[in-house]
Amino acid sequence: MKKTRICDLLGIEYPIIQGGMSWIANAELAAAVSEAGGFGIISPNAGMALDADPAEHLRSLIRRAKSLTNKPFGVNFPVLGTPKELVDVAIQERVRAVTTSAGNPATYTGYLKEAGIRVLHVVASVRHAQGAERRGVDAVIAEGYEAGGHNGFDELPTMVLVPRVVDAVKIPVVAAGGIMDSRGVAAAFALGAEGVQMGTAFIATRECVAHPNFKNAVIKAGDTDTVITARKLGPTRCLKNPLTEKVLEMEARGASADELQEFIGIGRARLGQLEGNLVEGEAYCGAGAGMIKEILSCAEVIRRIVDGYNAVVRKLA
Amino acid sequence: MKKTRICDLLGIEYPIIQGGMSWIANAELAAAVSEAGGFGIISPNAGMALDADPAEHLRSLIRRAKSLTNKPFGVNFPVLGTPKELVDVAIQERVRAVTTSAGNPATYTGYLKEAGIRVLHVVASVRHAQGAERRGVDAVIAEGYEAGGHNGFDELPTMVLVPRVVDAVKIPVVAAGGIMDSRGVAAAFALGAEGVQMGTAFIATRECVAHPNFKNAVIKAGDTDTVITARKLGPTRCLKNPLTEKVLEMEARGASADELQEFIGIGRARLGQLEGNLVEGEAYCGAGAGMIKEILSCAEVIRRIVDGYNAVVRKLA
Repeated sequence: MKKTRICDLLGIEYPIIQGGMSWIANAELAAAVSEAGGFGIISPNAGMALDADPAEHLRSLIRRAKSLTNKPFGVNFPVLGTPKELVDVAIQERVRAVTTSAGNPATYTGYLKEAGIRVLHVVASVRHAQGAERRGVDAVIAEGYEAGGHNGFDELPTMVLVPRVVDAVKIPVVAAGGIMDSRGVAAAFALGAEGVQMGTAFIATRECVAHPNFKNAVIKAGDTDTVITARKLGPTRCLKNPLTEKVLEMEARGASADELQEFIGIGRARLGQLEGNLVEGEAYCGAGAGMIKEILSCAEVIRRIVDGYNAVVRKLA
Repeated sequence: MKKTRICDLLGIEYPIIQGGMSWIANAELAAAVSEAGGFGIISPNAGMALDADPAEHLRSLIRRAKSLTNKPFGVNFPVLGTPKELVDVAIQERVRAVTTSAGNPATYTGYLKEAGIRVLHVVASVRHAQGAERRGVDAVIAEGYEAGGHNGFDELPTMVLVPRVVDAVKIPVVAAGGIMDSRGVAAAFALGAEGVQMGTAFIATRECVAHPNFKNAVIKAGDTDTVITARKLGPTRCLKNPLTEKVLEMEARGASADELQEFIGIGRARLGQLEGNLVEGEAYCGAGAGMIKEILSCAEVIRRIVDGYNAVVRKLA
């Protein structure tokens, strides 16, 4: 598979980044992806008990991953809701790179870069990509509306977002959203990306701490089994379930952002993804769910992508 | 550029189909695309006066295109709202192929096939693709949510829709939605498509009958300048304007499908696209608008795609 600036930046063999999925991107997952030649990313709240100390939890995740691999890995910080104390843990523990999302790249980019940590910022429009570049990030992750979880308000799909961001910035662009296999990786590269970030493809792996109910729902999902809800709060892609049905009903009759927030409350994603309650919980999930049809190891997911890539590219000529 | 089953089916050099855009896919446009090696498609109401006879109008469009090219071209019929009389004109005039959209493929597929006309049906989900295949269509056009105009209720983007449809049917799959240049074409082929359908890329061409206001708005559009409205009636992607703003306001406060229909009324797309009223009219437009930055000839649009394709593919290896 082709080498890109993303391989150099992250010190990896294949330009495949595992998405730092909230609650479920655990140390074993990140370490397994990095061991297989990709770039694993830890979510600070992966598998976290409700009464845990967040900074100590993150430190233990990073140390656990270090015990499992000597290869580089990273941490994802949603900027909104991440206190500086957590960022300091990533700096103290010397992770190779941090991905920042859901917030202003000005908040932590300079602070992380001064500490020698590489920064990739998740963007969902050209303006945000250019803003992140100006703030000094090393790369942007252009995440299309296909992605699971929180998406940008403009709802730009990968097919149009990626080439537009590539045309608008000089730093490397990583494509995310809807990429599930070697076909998607080749498509992302054709659009000009120098790497891919894949989240949903790594949920149904043996190493991921996601609840078995969630993993099974991901591999069984059909093309129409995810949906965007909560557009007034921030568009969020989840597996369809009784909760999303209820939220969609509220939205159809014009419920306000406050009403939606009050109904949804907090803790729904943890409930769905870690505890496996797919009736009342949220299960963040990309629109490509179901394209991986069985629970595999991370090594197998990456091996299939890498092995398939050249066959896909050969057929294009 | 690679030859596919779509080239054989349609008798064309490059597997590039021009979308049969309502009101604006005129005879000159279709003929120019076919002359350049692609497959041009006429919309039966292209440039039509409000008091014209629809069947005679379509017949004159087809004959005009025949006077401009000896190469094959086709006609698009939205199934809902197309009387059999119009379909009979396409049969009598012996067009090479018909694309059907917005309705049940059972309605006209058998009728057209018995008359020796090839049929491609536009689909927006796996279930619809499989249904169309069972009804005997020659190919499906898997159209993602990036596309301009009316989209499927499931809002599946091209990046996930295409590989899933490719996996689900044996007939050739044409990708549509968000494909604007050689990068998009290579991406679509990487996903398994054997052809592309491009609409928005052909609006801002010299041959298209779209109003100059509309063409200029298309080439000036930024990444966030289109929006989906009217989800309760059928999701429709348009250039953002005062009309879409008003519709979005109504939707946010919970307006019913009937209220939306009453407010929107009829004739908005003709008003925007043919008459150039971008304040009160609709301008159907794909999310990739603005990626073509100047008004070109159709020959030039196709030449740039074909010339660029091999460079894109070479960089993937």
